[in-house]
Amino acid sequence: MRTGQELYKKAKKLIPGGTMLLSKRPEMFLPENWPAYFDKTKGCDVWDLDGNKYLDMFIMGIGTNSLGYSNPKVDEAVRQVINKGNMSTFNCPEEVALAERLIELHPWGDMVRFARSGGEANAIAVRIARAASGKDKVAICGYHGWHDWYLSANLAEDDGLDGHLLPGLDPAGVPRHLRGSVIPFRYNKLEELKEIIAKNPDLGVVKMEVSRNMGPEPGYLEGVRQLCDQNGLVLIFDECTSGFRETFGGLHKKYGVEPDMCMFGKAMGNGYAITAVLGKRAVMEAAQKTFISSTFWTERIGPAAALATLDEMEKQNSWEIITHQGQKITKQWKSLGERLDLDINTAGLPALTSFSIASDSWLKYKTFITQEMLKQGILAGNSVYVCTAHTDEVIKRYFQAVEPILEKIKTFEKGDKSIDEFLEGPVCHGGFKRLN
Amino acid sequence: MRTGQELYKKAKKLIPGGTMLLSKRPEMFLPENWPAYFDKTKGCDVWDLDGNKYLDMFIMGIGTNSLGYSNPKVDEAVRQVINKGNMSTFNCPEEVALAERLIELHPWGDMVRFARSGGEANAIAVRIARAASGKDKVAICGYHGWHDWYLSANLAEDDGLDGHLLPGLDPAGVPRHLRGSVIPFRYNKLEELKEIIAKNPDLGVVKMEVSRNMGPEPGYLEGVRQLCDQNGLVLIFDECTSGFRETFGGLHKKYGVEPDMCMFGKAMGNGYAITAVLGKRAVMEAAQKTFISSTFWTERIGPAAALATLDEMEKQNSWEIITHQGQKITKQWKSLGERLDLDINTAGLPALTSFSIASDSWLKYKTFITQEMLKQGILAGNSVYVCTAHTDEVIKRYFQAVEPILEKIKTFEKGDKSIDEFLEGPVCHGGFKRLN
Repeated sequence: MRTGQELYKKAKKLIPGGTMLLSKRPEMFLPENWPAYFDKTKGCDVWDLDGNKYLDMFIMGIGTNSLGYSNPKVDEAVRQVINKGNMSTFNCPEEVALAERLIELHPWGDMVRFARSGGEANAIAVRIARAASGKDKVAICGYHGWHDWYLSANLAEDDGLDGHLLPGLDPAGVPRHLRGSVIPFRYNKLEELKEIIAKNPDLGVVKMEVSRNMGPEPGYLEGVRQLCDQNGLVLIFDECTSGFRETFGGLHKKYGVEPDMCMFGKAMGNGYAITAVLGKRAVMEAAQKTFISSTFWTERIGPAAALATLDEMEKQNSWEIITHQGQKITKQWKSLGERLDLDINTAGLPALTSFSIASDSWLKYKTFITQEMLKQGILAGNSVYVCTAHTDEVIKRYFQAVEPILEKIKTFEKGDKSIDEFLEGPVCHGGFKRLN
Repeated sequence: MRTGQELYKKAKKLIPGGTMLLSKRPEMFLPENWPAYFDKTKGCDVWDLDGNKYLDMFIMGIGTNSLGYSNPKVDEAVRQVINKGNMSTFNCPEEVALAERLIELHPWGDMVRFARSGGEANAIAVRIARAASGKDKVAICGYHGWHDWYLSANLAEDDGLDGHLLPGLDPAGVPRHLRGSVIPFRYNKLEELKEIIAKNPDLGVVKMEVSRNMGPEPGYLEGVRQLCDQNGLVLIFDECTSGFRETFGGLHKKYGVEPDMCMFGKAMGNGYAITAVLGKRAVMEAAQKTFISSTFWTERIGPAAALATLDEMEKQNSWEIITHQGQKITKQWKSLGERLDLDINTAGLPALTSFSIASDSWLKYKTFITQEMLKQGILAGNSVYVCTAHTDEVIKRYFQAVEPILEKIKTFEKGDKSIDEFLEGPVCHGGFKRLN
């Protein structure tokens, strides 16, 4: 574990922020004591640079590996790419096959563009939707990446107030001219979106996550769809995180509400970089009126990995497995909370389940859980991004380890003992907040 | 070859534009007859879906593979990544090693961020530079990707005029509020940049390619550097294309002028997706004031491939080889032009060399060259992106094939014969134009 921390100290001098992803900074988990770097992976196990093995009951590559790490079938497809060649002056046939496959899974869609990061897929979708609608303003609900178009939601009249809408997403360096071009709306509040539409005749696009901490109230998604239809707005569902978690494709399939465009990412390549923008022909063809082009979007590993991942998901019904296992975990957290009389709330899709304890000391408790679980060789915090390798056995091991820790937290809550005496390092940082 | 064209017909229905990169559209080469897709690659050879083998004397993956396709050392490093795991909840140590390596090669730099596409690296650099300068306006000279910040240069007062500055880069869907935020300036015209700076007190960033079709006139880059210093502007060199072509790192090393930031891409991973933003500490630390974060920037193949590529480049002195071979090709084009009395102009870095014939029929001639060379199993047009596999033998084969074709073009130029009778399909499309 120490080798990783030493390397991270160096990294912070060489890389602003130390890592490429906010959510993988050691400070988000266990400052000064998180192993930080990996040597190898397998199933739901990760080895650090000192050869210590950990069971990953935490973010599983931030949700990229729903078939587990180092899935043999997916890896074999990527090996074939390396044997044959990843890049050339010609294009790779896999991108056409993957486009076809995504359309087959989402018959409302007709055309696809690919990128290699979720933020970029979001930026492509917004560009195309703006070009299709001929209007600049976008109403948003959810997290949609780091790009200018999105962070502009956090530009306030007064720069001192910048960042208040989506706390933690600082928009320094985003052109101030973009202020007002993106309007956040709250989930499950149809009237709010209705008002935004009425007040903004230059609104052309509505972009949202299908589900937030809570799912949609009956009629909500249908209402959004209807508002978009009535007002000629392009409706985009951001499925980068939610895709392939509860259905074989977008979460919107569960609710029977079809967008005009949606994006996929994360789980789609089981740990290899690939993201997609799927849409109806009438909207997607606007991509031809604008310039969207990148050299590395033509590499072959991404689409080859995604094709193998989709095959494997289908064979295993992975979305059912991870949903089922996630429901078990959620249920056990709740019953533990009841048994220990801890105010435990759960949230999120079953396959991306999380809990919290209603307490002022919550971040300290979360740090304590991570600290104590790590000692037992388990990566854990307050969420589990479930993969198919999270068997009943694995879940049992997790709860055997976490139960005594929650019992200890109960003693802190009662005031018998102070959490501060038990923390061996600084408290973890909170993540950015999404507007709920 | 036909299988590829059949697949491409399908692709155009499923993917707006048919490919992910404008410069890989079959219409850019040989409409209706370009093989379009590849099965495998090796050295400077590419096989299409029908098993036909071609010598690539053209864009070599649009400049991604300066060590040739399927380089054994780089591929082996990627195989090791697959064996060990590409993604996890922890970070990969290779990104720290790569940051260190790039800084070692560019001692003026202190910190690095990575992405997986050149457009995204450009967008990151601009975000950080704007955050560091506290100003929104950016002066640009060159091609810097597809993102909103850049294409906004093509927004005109009147939307009918949109696109006139950088023809072929259509900004539909770019928020009109960004108009005026990016100011193009012409290369080698220091006075022009001086005026732009004088007129725009809200300018914070100057972003340019180090070399364009022609190299810098004596004192030009030094003058730009001085202007930036005097006015407190962040100077960014976009080395996505020029990096590792003439020096072991940025082309700016050749001229001894140091930027505040620069980007690398294309050749850095020898065909695997990886791009980098390198900068001075004072500038790069502004990344901490803003939100720049993406899941797939944490994958391991990119930095592992880049480390192996840099090792291999250093072992071979690849930048010298490709420059030397590129100079030979350029020289032979010129002497062919003289011998045939064809008005041939050459341009570009030696390792990215290109020629054109001053004629109204130029695009037809280019199409004809591609058409006739393809019949002989050679991918060719008017440029050669040189790789280390382009040996003297290979160059000889290329010129033996291209010489009779240029002789034929001479007969078209003289008016003895009409090119139109010899074209077996439509004329190729011209690419987008950069402001020179």
